[in-house]
Amino acid sequence: MKKKKAVILLSGGLDSTTVLFMVRRWGYKAWCLIFDYGQRHKKEIKAAKRIAGICRCDYELVKFKLPWGGSSLLGGATRKAKIPRDRSLKKIGGQIPSTYVPGRNTIFISFGFSYAERLGAEAVFIGANSVDFSGYPDCRPEYFRCFEKLAQKGITKKGIDIRVPLLRKNKAEIIATGKSLSVPYELTWSCYYGGGKPCLRCDACQLRQKGFTESGFPDPLLAYKK
Amino acid sequence: MKKKKAVILLSGGLDSTTVLFMVRRWGYKAWCLIFDYGQRHKKEIKAAKRIAGICRCDYELVKFKLPWGGSSLLGGATRKAKIPRDRSLKKIGGQIPSTYVPGRNTIFISFGFSYAERLGAEAVFIGANSVDFSGYPDCRPEYFRCFEKLAQKGITKKGIDIRVPLLRKNKAEIIATGKSLSVPYELTWSCYYGGGKPCLRCDACQLRQKGFTESGFPDPLLAYKK
Repeated sequence: MKKKKAVILLSGGLDSTTVLFMVRRWGYKAWCLIFDYGQRHKKEIKAAKRIAGICRCDYELVKFKLPWGGSSLLGGATRKAKIPRDRSLKKIGGQIPSTYVPGRNTIFISFGFSYAERLGAEAVFIGANSVDFSGYPDCRPEYFRCFEKLAQKGITKKGIDIRVPLLRKNKAEIIATGKSLSVPYELTWSCYYGGGKPCLRCDACQLRQKGFTESGFPDPLLAYKK
Repeated sequence: MKKKKAVILLSGGLDSTTVLFMVRRWGYKAWCLIFDYGQRHKKEIKAAKRIAGICRCDYELVKFKLPWGGSSLLGGATRKAKIPRDRSLKKIGGQIPSTYVPGRNTIFISFGFSYAERLGAEAVFIGANSVDFSGYPDCRPEYFRCFEKLAQKGITKKGIDIRVPLLRKNKAEIIATGKSLSVPYELTWSCYYGGGKPCLRCDACQLRQKGFTESGFPDPLLAYKK
């Protein structure tokens, strides 16, 4: 029997890497889509490529820049604001932080559709989640519901599914799922900075640490670096 | 009173240029968004920049490439198929031609949303039409209906409109509208080839010529080049 085909938007972070392992377990043949959109550091791109390689998945790298900037996550001349640090976990998710990149998920998903259409894949998977998340408007469930309708009816005559399997899971649940699939979390990178080790102060680090603590597993990235 | 803001996806062709003039007539302050997506020639990009300049609109150029190719309209190594020529007008629109770029409009519109969100603009305008068109799935009315819903509910909390004012117009009607707004059609470029003058054989040339003939106006591009 021919395997079903899927495109995975792979950032090199904890969530999308878990999705990649879930999708393979579900019997899909997976293609990874990695983005170089002018982010501050290339460490997450390197991580994504390495993870795709370990999974023996083909990947494509799409490069673009948003000339209008608008996010502290973007490098170069457009960077104005600072990446927030040491925000309390209560504050994270409550308001849109400076790390929000306008329209990023919409752009990512639209490239995913293009790739899926070209491959004849039936679904695009994205690792977004709306429980332990940074308050980005394009991670809300309403957003994905709308996009699902577009994808099913609008994109091609056949339709392409958009799947967001982690949408309702918290970080600890995601990690527990990933652990059962032997996800090599030591290869994933979540920190907004591209340093030698995670800063442990940005939102991404804080959410990751909360997840590992709650899941009862140690973060291998920290164990490794200590 | 402050002017309403809009983003116009400007290809440098007849349709999107007409939309730009319509939008300005409607009292919007317009920002143009131009794409360099690895198309075969840069002539339409030059045309778009010049038209934005004449309208004294700010513009941004977004560059990207689709590594998976899949269209005769794309240059470089991914180009396989030939651009169809001398197709009868009946045939044009009946099937998806090799010039179709998978997901192109979805990608364009998603960048438009990002730009609009950054500017605080309330609408993104696109010059697509579904009457005299090349049979691209992402020019169908159903496609835009789905995208409109996404835009209004999903993208930001406020919502951004997507407007497709030429959707139900044929080329002759578009040209008549443009003529009433003094659109400088001599600056627009429709031909899929980037030659000194239009080839008059590709789908884009044939639809343009049909439009000018039916509208009763001469194509200034041809008058100019003769």
